[in-house]
Amino acid sequence: MDERFRKQIDFIIEIDKIKSIFRKSKLFDNSRFENDAEHSWHLAIMAILLSEYSNEPVDLLKVMKMVLIHDIVEIDAGDTIIYSRDNTKTDDKEILAANRIFGLLPEDQKQEMIGIWQEFEEKKSPEAKFAGAIDRLEPIMQNYYTEAYAWKTNNIPAEKILSVNNSKIKNGSDKLWDYAKSLIDECVDKGLIK
Amino acid sequence: MDERFRKQIDFIIEIDKIKSIFRKSKLFDNSRFENDAEHSWHLAIMAILLSEYSNEPVDLLKVMKMVLIHDIVEIDAGDTIIYSRDNTKTDDKEILAANRIFGLLPEDQKQEMIGIWQEFEEKKSPEAKFAGAIDRLEPIMQNYYTEAYAWKTNNIPAEKILSVNNSKIKNGSDKLWDYAKSLIDECVDKGLIK
Repeated sequence: MDERFRKQIDFIIEIDKIKSIFRKSKLFDNSRFENDAEHSWHLAIMAILLSEYSNEPVDLLKVMKMVLIHDIVEIDAGDTIIYSRDNTKTDDKEILAANRIFGLLPEDQKQEMIGIWQEFEEKKSPEAKFAGAIDRLEPIMQNYYTEAYAWKTNNIPAEKILSVNNSKIKNGSDKLWDYAKSLIDECVDKGLIK
Repeated sequence: MDERFRKQIDFIIEIDKIKSIFRKSKLFDNSRFENDAEHSWHLAIMAILLSEYSNEPVDLLKVMKMVLIHDIVEIDAGDTIIYSRDNTKTDDKEILAANRIFGLLPEDQKQEMIGIWQEFEEKKSPEAKFAGAIDRLEPIMQNYYTEAYAWKTNNIPAEKILSVNNSKIKNGSDKLWDYAKSLIDECVDKGLIK
């Protein structure tokens, strides 16, 4: 086996570990926690179906690559609920993880993947803003359908849910933010969160 | 909420069920069976990294859409190991499932998704042949790394593994078939399969 192919296969095997990184939110049927591979798969389908609602035109292929790889760093850095972290900058542990894991790939693919991941983290390009919006929308939908499970369990007040997600989703899609806000508001109306 | 958006959201929630459809092969660390969402996620990453080995040039975006949605029909039709089915035609249960599940979408997206799924099933276009190749490659890699778990458990002889996968993988990628064949051969040499 040539070196380039060996590196690609090594990476493909390494990222299997993402299937054992569990998130704080549950499947829509409330049966168990969702893992990062399932979450990333769901976002890619959402990107295909909902990109018409992006505030700015996007390159769909790039959005899909972003959402498919965005959580690979959690193999080393773990999953953290967005409400407990500084969302203005990328965690140092995640930068180290990106270098180690994407570093398994041949140089050209390593550079492409790290570039896409950094672009996603920076949330400046239309693709990164839209990818960020659907990354935030999915757990809001999951909370809505599981009686606010992750929000209640982690004691997140509605005010914080609104403030942390507002700009991130709205920057990518006004339409998706209107929807997300309506779900959060309904959870408040039902007395599930304060 | 307008009707178009409501249909898109209904579909996005419905397909969450794919996360509870478990396959016959295990994760690379042998800890548990893989589900269809995780499998589809892994194939999409493999498509990004390995499309340079397709026998014919492919539209990567289309390959990714194919592998991300190809197993959605299993929500209704269930997962069947390829060695126990007629791989020359699509199961009627799967056609009914495609119509029901993709039928939740707005008409234009329903048509696009059913079209992509049918194209994948027919294995005639370069994209379908390559998507089919990686769909077959992943479980061969998983078997190789889990001491031939699914092959042994389901009593699949090497001859059948080779004949069922040979044309399907080779039609999409000679390079990937050479690799797949080397893994199967090694399992025979180790005495894991006959």
